[in-house]
Amino acid sequence: MKKYCFGVDIGGTTIKLGLFDREGTILEKWEIPTRTQDGGAYILKDTAAALLAKLEEKKISREEVAGAGIGAPGPVDADGVIYGAVNLGWGVFNLQKELEALCGLPVRAGNDANVAALGEMWKGGGQGFHSLVLVTLGTGIGGGIIVNGGILSGATGAGGEIGHIHIQDGEEESCGCGNHGCLEQYASATGIVRLAKRILEQSEEASILRQGELSAKAVFDAVKEKDAAAIRVAEAFGEYLGKGLAAIAAVVNPEAFVIGGGVSKAGEILLTFVEKNYKKYVFHGSRAAQFKLATLGNDAGICGAAKLVFE
Amino acid sequence: MKKYCFGVDIGGTTIKLGLFDREGTILEKWEIPTRTQDGGAYILKDTAAALLAKLEEKKISREEVAGAGIGAPGPVDADGVIYGAVNLGWGVFNLQKELEALCGLPVRAGNDANVAALGEMWKGGGQGFHSLVLVTLGTGIGGGIIVNGGILSGATGAGGEIGHIHIQDGEEESCGCGNHGCLEQYASATGIVRLAKRILEQSEEASILRQGELSAKAVFDAVKEKDAAAIRVAEAFGEYLGKGLAAIAAVVNPEAFVIGGGVSKAGEILLTFVEKNYKKYVFHGSRAAQFKLATLGNDAGICGAAKLVFE
Repeated sequence: MKKYCFGVDIGGTTIKLGLFDREGTILEKWEIPTRTQDGGAYILKDTAAALLAKLEEKKISREEVAGAGIGAPGPVDADGVIYGAVNLGWGVFNLQKELEALCGLPVRAGNDANVAALGEMWKGGGQGFHSLVLVTLGTGIGGGIIVNGGILSGATGAGGEIGHIHIQDGEEESCGCGNHGCLEQYASATGIVRLAKRILEQSEEASILRQGELSAKAVFDAVKEKDAAAIRVAEAFGEYLGKGLAAIAAVVNPEAFVIGGGVSKAGEILLTFVEKNYKKYVFHGSRAAQFKLATLGNDAGICGAAKLVFE
Repeated sequence: MKKYCFGVDIGGTTIKLGLFDREGTILEKWEIPTRTQDGGAYILKDTAAALLAKLEEKKISREEVAGAGIGAPGPVDADGVIYGAVNLGWGVFNLQKELEALCGLPVRAGNDANVAALGEMWKGGGQGFHSLVLVTLGTGIGGGIIVNGGILSGATGAGGEIGHIHIQDGEEESCGCGNHGCLEQYASATGIVRLAKRILEQSEEASILRQGELSAKAVFDAVKEKDAAAIRVAEAFGEYLGKGLAAIAAVVNPEAFVIGGGVSKAGEILLTFVEKNYKKYVFHGSRAAQFKLATLGNDAGICGAAKLVFE
């Protein structure tokens, strides 16, 4: 019986690593820097060295380890092929096989947002569900879709790219992806700031938001103070996100949406704006979907990666 | 070795049945009327009787039959539970188990649109793909989503309800589902007629469409004659559908879209309007999805139902 597994979450700045037992308890977690130079050539070598050093340190033999799961910031297909990761300098290659060769453990790979969704289902806000959508509201919007307990990675690893659903016609500013009017232009942390600026420019009305730096946090803090302009920003945010999630539900009909990322620190109040608008737009067959907050924070990635090993 | 299987497609007027071999060849197909009286109480009994009569007629023993697949016009979950079918008078029950008890064969059940997608993948326009979206443009818009070769039925059987993606704000007319601005209000056969009426009302411009009855067929026939107003209707249709399919691609990233239903009889010219607009809105990771026409017509349902047995 294999007692342990590893979860690895490759980010643009740090690589997060975790040693887990089969039940998903984090026995130890640590980080190493991501060396992106030379086309990211050192990243997997550093990762493998870190895993093997941990086994050495803990006196665990390879035979006791079921494997290592790895999440990476790019499209990854079901065979473990990554189709490039700009942040890391990576091109297209089989991430799974390469790390396996370096560490001598069975490896399973996935896209970081998809893997985080698996983590939240296993140990976080999505516990008890078998089909869910993790919506990560950070600088952009990441998505991870779980169907029947498994990741929906898509034909070329671009499943769950929900931040790039076209949600607004006539947008003049362009999204990071090159399109105009993507969901993440309105409902991510930066999108909320954009909405707030637009709403504040429309009037001279007094608002807490006119003091200090505009941020998604500032908006939801002001909502809690019943600031009228902030409430309008939150409504606009909820309208965009609710409409986007309703479109997703018309496609995959999940049991639940789990909302994570920095913006979700606003808490339950954020869900009220999203859920109300979701119900306005959703097809009745998906009306019962539940809304939950993610609970794992930065551990979702390593946790879901560890779960990949047991898929 | 089981040599045969049955495929059954329950419609509001007729029940289509087919006897297949394992390779998916239709050995025989026939229809019986759908008796919707008494809450649809006779539908499964009639179906079972028709199947057993066919075995008798062809001197095939039950042991030679792998099973019967059945598609029905309502949400069906992965366990074969149907959550009501208004056209048939049905409430919620386990369709799979009930038909099994009646005919003594293993039964697999699915939603008709999802099952048709499986049929098109097995024997129709989607051959060679393992993940695809069947878009059925009829009176409404049906959708069937195949991921890794299997149907994505959704948590409550409402997966693939793509006709009810919200695509237009400010629509005053309501969709059959009760919402406003659903994709099927613009890109179904009736939606195209609505678009055509609106465009013809905007000017006095001469158009073939002002003669005879307006229909989706009339629009695409006029497009082939280079009728300017008809081309604007087709552009508007393509814009709505392309945008909707781009949203679907951001969620499931399929290899292909297969377009079927009455409207698809317009042929390849229809695909050009859809694909061009799809590329305008889609996230680059899903840009390579292919566009194909469905080829099975009314046989998609029985064919996909037969395939369910071998899933």
